[in-house]
Amino acid sequence: MLNACQALEKQGVAVTFLPVDRNGRVNPEAVRRSIRPETVLITVMHANNELGTVQPLEEIGRIAKETDVYFHTDAVQSAGKLPINVNAMQVDLLSISGHKLYAPQGIGALYVRSGTRLRQFLYGGHHQRGFRPGTENVPGIVGLGKAADLARRSLEKDARRISDLRDDLERGLLARVPDARLNGSDAPRTPNTTNITFAGVEGEALVIALDLRGLACSTGAACSSGAVEPSHVLTAIGLPPEEARASLRFSLGRHTTRADIDFALDVVPAAVAQLRELSPAYRKAVEAS
Amino acid sequence: MLNACQALEKQGVAVTFLPVDRNGRVNPEAVRRSIRPETVLITVMHANNELGTVQPLEEIGRIAKETDVYFHTDAVQSAGKLPINVNAMQVDLLSISGHKLYAPQGIGALYVRSGTRLRQFLYGGHHQRGFRPGTENVPGIVGLGKAADLARRSLEKDARRISDLRDDLERGLLARVPDARLNGSDAPRTPNTTNITFAGVEGEALVIALDLRGLACSTGAACSSGAVEPSHVLTAIGLPPEEARASLRFSLGRHTTRADIDFALDVVPAAVAQLRELSPAYRKAVEAS
Repeated sequence: MLNACQALEKQGVAVTFLPVDRNGRVNPEAVRRSIRPETVLITVMHANNELGTVQPLEEIGRIAKETDVYFHTDAVQSAGKLPINVNAMQVDLLSISGHKLYAPQGIGALYVRSGTRLRQFLYGGHHQRGFRPGTENVPGIVGLGKAADLARRSLEKDARRISDLRDDLERGLLARVPDARLNGSDAPRTPNTTNITFAGVEGEALVIALDLRGLACSTGAACSSGAVEPSHVLTAIGLPPEEARASLRFSLGRHTTRADIDFALDVVPAAVAQLRELSPAYRKAVEAS
Repeated sequence: MLNACQALEKQGVAVTFLPVDRNGRVNPEAVRRSIRPETVLITVMHANNELGTVQPLEEIGRIAKETDVYFHTDAVQSAGKLPINVNAMQVDLLSISGHKLYAPQGIGALYVRSGTRLRQFLYGGHHQRGFRPGTENVPGIVGLGKAADLARRSLEKDARRISDLRDDLERGLLARVPDARLNGSDAPRTPNTTNITFAGVEGEALVIALDLRGLACSTGAACSSGAVEPSHVLTAIGLPPEEARASLRFSLGRHTTRADIDFALDVVPAAVAQLRELSPAYRKAVEAS
């Protein structure tokens, strides 16, 4: 199975992948340096799905405009969590996904700036000017519209409340769990995501232990659930594989309460301690230090 | 804008288009004769969308199996209206669309016979074994499942009731409107569709006249609404352009009542007569005959 960039490469399109810093952010000057005369598209996600860190889109957008290259952002992680202004970002294309902002699953939207030239790649009826043939998902579209409207109205209030809870969760876990470290914390972040490495723990085992206690979290993105490789995001920001595997992502949302945070602060330290008890390597390392 | 076959041809794939008889049906022997050593796929719709006539899929399926060519059918028009048995039809692939069987809009399904080799052409996450990346439309999927279940339960009863109403509509219109002719009537048909040519009438004008009176019908498929060309289905079955343009499709459904039919039998003859009054060509033709 190929992802979109691999598929483009297979079709003979040259794709340049840029490195990220330890917060998962792209350097705008690296974007500028990588642009070639034949470059047609820059695509950078708005917020990282595993870290929540926000990319410097306005600076990249300025470069894209100066160099006359189309600029796309994947705002799936940020829509409904951060204000989005396609003009400030200077993006030509922006994608969002409904279920990330409390709309039904299976609906999304692509913002296309007027004048952007796209090529049809699905073929059939004349729907959506021929770009996406097929009877439209009307209930999904209505749901997405309503969800976007509700998200916009409560965005500031939600963001403040959720980031307060997230900060309390982080502070609490770092205080209660020895050898825990926050990933991607030195950059602007979405209010709802935190990613923490618990040294010496196998992340998948911790996910299961917490699931049994009633707390859902993940070692990576749902899109690659079942994958055995360590998170490519965490390795890209410089974590060695064993630390990437020892990392967990906690996501908060509109329905997360103070009681949920207290519960997490209760069960996570206990579960980590229990798993570390079972790990001879970790105990040896602690004794040696 | 290209349709799927035109897109394949543009990519260098040879596509053979087969003619249809005056009922819009493909001759299975013509299918057999057109198969070449490099043929990989036969695709024939189950029921025609404008005529309702049903293709001889079992015979074509037998030929596909004998010649070891994949066989696909578009059952969008027939699902929920006719019994569907993928084994009797010997199809490897069968597509249906939710909104045609009272499921929500924007959901469909592709039946894939076990062992059929498909190539990925959308790229992204690992959903649906990589063939259709993206978070699944869960409400749509549940709706389609429930709608299919309901359709299966009431299929026989609905088909009988609806085809009785359809037959009464046809008989009534042919009796009350001079120079009216049924299209595609000498073949098995879905219970819900009738297509009638009203000589001397501009179909689009009749659609509008009937719409103003509260009756919705069409001159062709919704997929090509706004098109100025006469229906390609009606020209394919041999109607000259002026007759194709003078033809209307009436569709019945689960909610159509006897009163609806009586209403149609009232307003259609009157609207046709009125439009013909305004047509000097039609009046001259009648006077000359």
